[in-house]
Amino acid sequence: MSQPTTDQMSLILFSGDFDKAMAALTLANGAAGRGMQVNIFFTFWGISLLRRKNLESKFFLEKLFKTMMPVGTENLGLSKFNFCGIGPWLLKKLIRQKDGQTTQDLFKMAIDREVRFIACEASLKLLGIKKEELIEYEHLEVAGVDTFLHSALESKIAMLI
Amino acid sequence: MSQPTTDQMSLILFSGDFDKAMAALTLANGAAGRGMQVNIFFTFWGISLLRRKNLESKFFLEKLFKTMMPVGTENLGLSKFNFCGIGPWLLKKLIRQKDGQTTQDLFKMAIDREVRFIACEASLKLLGIKKEELIEYEHLEVAGVDTFLHSALESKIAMLI
Amino acid sequence: MSQPTTDQMSLILFSGDFDKAMAALTLANGAAGRGMQVNIFFTFWGISLLRRKNLESKFFLEKLFKTMMPVGTENLGLSKFNFCGIGPWLLKKLIRQKDGQTTQDLFKMAIDREVRFIACEASLKLLGIKKEELIEYEHLEVAGVDTFLHSALESKIAMLI
Repeated sequence: MSQPTTDQMSLILFSGDFDKAMAALTLANGAAGRGMQVNIFFTFWGISLLRRKNLESKFFLEKLFKTMMPVGTENLGLSKFNFCGIGPWLLKKLIRQKDGQTTQDLFKMAIDREVRFIACEASLKLLGIKKEELIEYEHLEVAGVDTFLHSALESKIAMLI
Repeated sequence: MSQPTTDQMSLILFSGDFDKAMAALTLANGAAGRGMQVNIFFTFWGISLLRRKNLESKFFLEKLFKTMMPVGTENLGLSKFNFCGIGPWLLKKLIRQKDGQTTQDLFKMAIDREVRFIACEASLKLLGIKKEELIEYEHLEVAGVDTFLHSALESKIAMLI
Repeated sequence: MSQPTTDQMSLILFSGDFDKAMAALTLANGAAGRGMQVNIFFTFWGISLLRRKNLESKFFLEKLFKTMMPVGTENLGLSKFNFCGIGPWLLKKLIRQKDGQTTQDLFKMAIDREVRFIACEASLKLLGIKKEELIEYEHLEVAGVDTFLHSALESKIAMLI
């Protein structure tokens, strides 16, 4: 009741695109840098960022979707001008030239800043992705939409990307 | 003043994609399930979900856009890997295999849970879609951006998809 | 402390698409029309709207991205049914037939209503776009994510498009 409260921000990362993930992670790192508590709910295509490896699936459709979706932040596409992967490759080169931060760098920074990651339970179940296929991170949990709503209700900023 | 208040969530569904609509409706049903009042403002491509039939239009451009835009939740595309409709068809199959809920199921659930639907007046006017072409639903109204802003100002969560 | 406060809305315009910019600017003008203070943070592809001219760049990759990204509100594409520019051209025709407002009209209105524009510093640096390549507007500033977060924390509505 009389506890000091920390401002919170809750993001939904629905997209698995390099550029959109960059935007979400820049916001997350900025807010965490201000001392805010940040929660990111990774759902649908956004699950890609949390993937560490791809365990073989027995079911054809699962296998298909799991093969199409990137594993980790290294292999994301662009939401525009993707050109079969040339776009993100060029953008990464440009970012390096400018000493900027790529999605990978921002993702690591978010982990350093202890941003809370929530992997959408329903998305994992749908795609047949097991928890052991995700990155190992102390502040990663698997939970449902209710967990997100709970944190969004306590947040000053809630956005979907 | 001393009335008990219900927490509100207001969403803008700008997208008419199967996967994005799924995300919006999952959020809506989750929040309604918690006892929150949920408002969804359907605008632009999002109008597709509310369409029940396609009345012939006399004007060429109207006809063109109305023909390109899906009618109802059955015919939505995916924001990624659409492949001329194969993507959503496979995703629906996968959802069925897992006893999950498709966009259609979630849409019906939102209606059962009395989520308030607002069809964007300007979008309807632009596309020449009449109210009788939309689904019949007690809690569907046609209104403008001001109605959305009013509800967003009273909401704890406001997001655009 | 005892000052009368104005409700605020803060938007991130990440997208440079005609239809999404239309949605963002409709929201912005609606809120400004209600007397709210509106802040738009233009980032990544959204920077396109603020571009006035394209100064030659010495670096190949900068030049490439700067050439691919539209200059100003006149040349934006659609997020769906773009068909190499035919989509937005037809949509603009349709809007004119209905006496509606195009993205250009809404952009001018936002300037008339003194909506505050913030051009994302990191995006400009990345793309090598200088401030003199942007529109001249009293309420346009170049700033970082922290400026956005500050305004979002003071806003009743914060959304990303």
